[in-house]
Amino acid sequence: MTRERLYLFDTTLRDGQQTQGVQFSLEDKHQIAAILDELGIDYIEGGWPGANPTDSDFFEQAPKLKHATFLAFGMTKRVGRSAANDEVLAGVVNANTPAVCLVGKSHDFHVTTALGVSLDENVAAIADSISHLVGEGREAMYDAEHFFDGYKANPDYAIACLHAALEAGARWVVLCDTNGGTLPAEVHEITKAVIASGIPGDRLGIHTHNDTENAVANTLAAVDAGARQVQGTLNGLGERCGNANLISLIPTLLLKEPYASTLETAVTEDGLASLTRASRMMDDILNRVPLRSAPYVGASAFAHKAGLHASAMLKDPSTYEHVDPACVGNARIIPMSNQAGQSNLRERLSGAGLEVEKGDPALGRILDLVKQREAAGYTYDTAQASFELLARQELGILPRFFSIDRYRVTVERRKNRRGETISLSEAVVVLFINGEKRLSVSESLDETGSDRGPVNALSRALAKDLGPLQPYISDMKLVDFKVRITNGGTEAVTRVIIDSEDASGRRWSTVGVSPNIVDASFEALLEAIQWKLLRDGAPAA
Amino acid sequence: MTRERLYLFDTTLRDGQQTQGVQFSLEDKHQIAAILDELGIDYIEGGWPGANPTDSDFFEQAPKLKHATFLAFGMTKRVGRSAANDEVLAGVVNANTPAVCLVGKSHDFHVTTALGVSLDENVAAIADSISHLVGEGREAMYDAEHFFDGYKANPDYAIACLHAALEAGARWVVLCDTNGGTLPAEVHEITKAVIASGIPGDRLGIHTHNDTENAVANTLAAVDAGARQVQGTLNGLGERCGNANLISLIPTLLLKEPYASTLETAVTEDGLASLTRASRMMDDILNRVPLRSAPYVGASAFAHKAGLHASAMLKDPSTYEHVDPACVGNARIIPMSNQAGQSNLRERLSGAGLEVEKGDPALGRILDLVKQREAAGYTYDTAQASFELLARQELGILPRFFSIDRYRVTVERRKNRRGETISLSEAVVVLFINGEKRLSVSESLDETGSDRGPVNALSRALAKDLGPLQPYISDMKLVDFKVRITNGGTEAVTRVIIDSEDASGRRWSTVGVSPNIVDASFEALLEAIQWKLLRDGAPAA
Repeated sequence: MTRERLYLFDTTLRDGQQTQGVQFSLEDKHQIAAILDELGIDYIEGGWPGANPTDSDFFEQAPKLKHATFLAFGMTKRVGRSAANDEVLAGVVNANTPAVCLVGKSHDFHVTTALGVSLDENVAAIADSISHLVGEGREAMYDAEHFFDGYKANPDYAIACLHAALEAGARWVVLCDTNGGTLPAEVHEITKAVIASGIPGDRLGIHTHNDTENAVANTLAAVDAGARQVQGTLNGLGERCGNANLISLIPTLLLKEPYASTLETAVTEDGLASLTRASRMMDDILNRVPLRSAPYVGASAFAHKAGLHASAMLKDPSTYEHVDPACVGNARIIPMSNQAGQSNLRERLSGAGLEVEKGDPALGRILDLVKQREAAGYTYDTAQASFELLARQELGILPRFFSIDRYRVTVERRKNRRGETISLSEAVVVLFINGEKRLSVSESLDETGSDRGPVNALSRALAKDLGPLQPYISDMKLVDFKVRITNGGTEAVTRVIIDSEDASGRRWSTVGVSPNIVDASFEALLEAIQWKLLRDGAPAA
Repeated sequence: MTRERLYLFDTTLRDGQQTQGVQFSLEDKHQIAAILDELGIDYIEGGWPGANPTDSDFFEQAPKLKHATFLAFGMTKRVGRSAANDEVLAGVVNANTPAVCLVGKSHDFHVTTALGVSLDENVAAIADSISHLVGEGREAMYDAEHFFDGYKANPDYAIACLHAALEAGARWVVLCDTNGGTLPAEVHEITKAVIASGIPGDRLGIHTHNDTENAVANTLAAVDAGARQVQGTLNGLGERCGNANLISLIPTLLLKEPYASTLETAVTEDGLASLTRASRMMDDILNRVPLRSAPYVGASAFAHKAGLHASAMLKDPSTYEHVDPACVGNARIIPMSNQAGQSNLRERLSGAGLEVEKGDPALGRILDLVKQREAAGYTYDTAQASFELLARQELGILPRFFSIDRYRVTVERRKNRRGETISLSEAVVVLFINGEKRLSVSESLDETGSDRGPVNALSRALAKDLGPLQPYISDMKLVDFKVRITNGGTEAVTRVIIDSEDASGRRWSTVGVSPNIVDASFEALLEAIQWKLLRDGAPAA
């Protein structure tokens, strides 16, 4: 059976740029385009030439794409001038992209109210604009704005807009759920009606928003009805609640039935396996913490908590996982928790390179210790590095790199001579390496002279002078710091989780617990350094 | 036309507790149950009695619910013993909840492989367990684990399990997509087949997971097919990628067609309007940053970027919004106008006993100040007391009770004479009341001699000697302390939220922000005291 071609259209650089708080730089745009091209996306919409300086620059220095078709986005020409004389449209055409997508009205209310023109004038504007693009040798697309609301208000008119674009030579017409309020059953029914009106599915696209948490389902509903182009963004970026998330759609379309055996895309097996990395890179560009619960690519997406599941899962993972995590470049995690059994534990140790025989009495001891520490407020679900240190300690294979003698931190707020309130923290750390005593002191002031607080001062003092160990930790940095008050036995304690990163891009998490927040932070900082020394093979004291 | 009753079932406290990194305290569980009850949820699943000490305690001190039915979760009895003699089931029954939900197998492969029993034995175990519950006077439910995979492998067997439960007296049988891999079209088709087999829709529930980002759509697909109980969690918490998000489902089911005019739930208009707050409170309990892009309740969900549609939108927002944000307790954000903001603000001020006339220029100033402070990392969603102080300051009606001159905190960890590691914090606070200077010093040691950390020492020193104001604050105590790293402009800052309580049981929340955690805590502590002095009518300096 021949599979039908399904086209993937990414609008991260255009609609994704409408996300509140997101402003891509030129460099960001180039990086994202490269990620998308690598992934196997068919169409990359770069932005709206002329809308802002970055977009204009981006089209002037267009990305070199190996596979994808580069697009400019714009708007159908205004009524009252010809397509060739509309300077907004001209700006889009002059970007010289092989393909152009123009948004235009298809909802009668918006035509008469927002544009203030007649219904026929709008249809003519769509047709003229598309003809103009085709005459300029471009692949043309028409994004039918508010299509589903328009169809519900006036189906004949909404469909007439699509036909006008298609007859003028558009390669694709795209049904846009601009407000994001349409539900999957409606999208399915309306898309079927559009196809029944004579619009071929292989010239029909779908563009959805996540305002009811159905953007992915709406896209699938349109594909079920026959649409063969899907639009979306990396990690579901986009205005309001975001666009359809291509990171979730791609594996569903490639791996799951009925799609896997009836459709084909340009995404290869390698492209699919790069999906987790693509998603994390997108977050890195935006400096966002990746969503642990993200479908397919999240750190928790294949994390199994209940001990009950874990033992059966070790027998046959496929019965507890809807797809193989390796297909999308993700990995199975069996985290520790107070519900974990020995089988979870062995699987987790093995993930840390520690093979322990079934029945080894150390397993019971480690489990007890984890339970005891969790009751005291620790958590090892996320703090894998601390878990590894704890297990190694219990297995007798944790080297000792240095020992802490004491520390002292002072936080002060007072008025300076000019009467301004200033604050300052200072930390002193005293430790021993190979019997040699080392004292370090650091302040909390950053390069701009502002106070970064006591944990910052302590972290700097701790990492300031580790003597022969210094080269092993010089590329480490603290990337995230989470604090929560929790229960440790009967008393409230502070739990600190620290995420660290090194130059290789490796990330690890450690945990510290104490009623004293500075103490808890110190413990987590200390373990972050120990783990790094361990992993990079630093010499034991 | 009479509307059919749709039942809402929340499993935040059971399945939601499986979220990686989530560990609810007893107090958390009580708070969440109260939120759910207020919202109008029909069934609240509290956990698994006997699975861990917190769950056991929670059932012993069961929440007092005004509306919802409280449930215990458990597992069908094991083969080889009677329901009455299964001690795991007994633990669940002994929790004495009015309703009980038991999970059991319905996928033939899991019955023979994971349980290692015959297909008939499993059916008998389901029937016996349900009969036992009914005999004990409980409302019984059966969660059919891996139902959709089971149906695909052996439809007759999967359906036979449902019928066995129903015939044994189950009020509900629930189709669980345990792995989260089933897609909406399949859920719809299989749910229809289940109903066609003779299971009435008004005894049929749906329980989905978000592994393909379709948990909400899968739930709707089952409701479309006739299921009349939907299971989910607040903010979509849950194992791996989470469960169906009730926060997204509730407004869709109440506000959108075809559901709004054909179904009814126990959620009132007021309950629906509390949705945004419920979602934020859940995040607060978990100390999570609320997702800006969350459907319906996110800060960006109704944020419209100025541009193309600004003027049309101001004329008639309904054409650009799929629902009215006020229905779910959220607010429209329009960069061009803060009209909507002002009426919200007046309402909020009035809640704090501050009546401000419409059009008062102070309203615009307060809005600007709140925006500015929120951009710097503050949040006033929960910190109502800090909001009130800020508004009073701007309205010129905030009395000045005392002024802070300076403080200093020292945190030390060292070895004592016996070689034990000890830690100790000490705080000095210097302030002026009526021109009189007062110095106070406090340590962080509690009555047992253990160190409670620098914030504790600071809080004690601050409240130690307020002279004539002392009687007003003597019954105050700090009941919760939440710390989060957030963005303040371009830099990471620490946000501290402090919950205080007094002898009358009154609780209030204040917020402080600084890169320095001790400074941020100090600000929140200070405002907590100021609010208490204000509310109890202490004399101004």
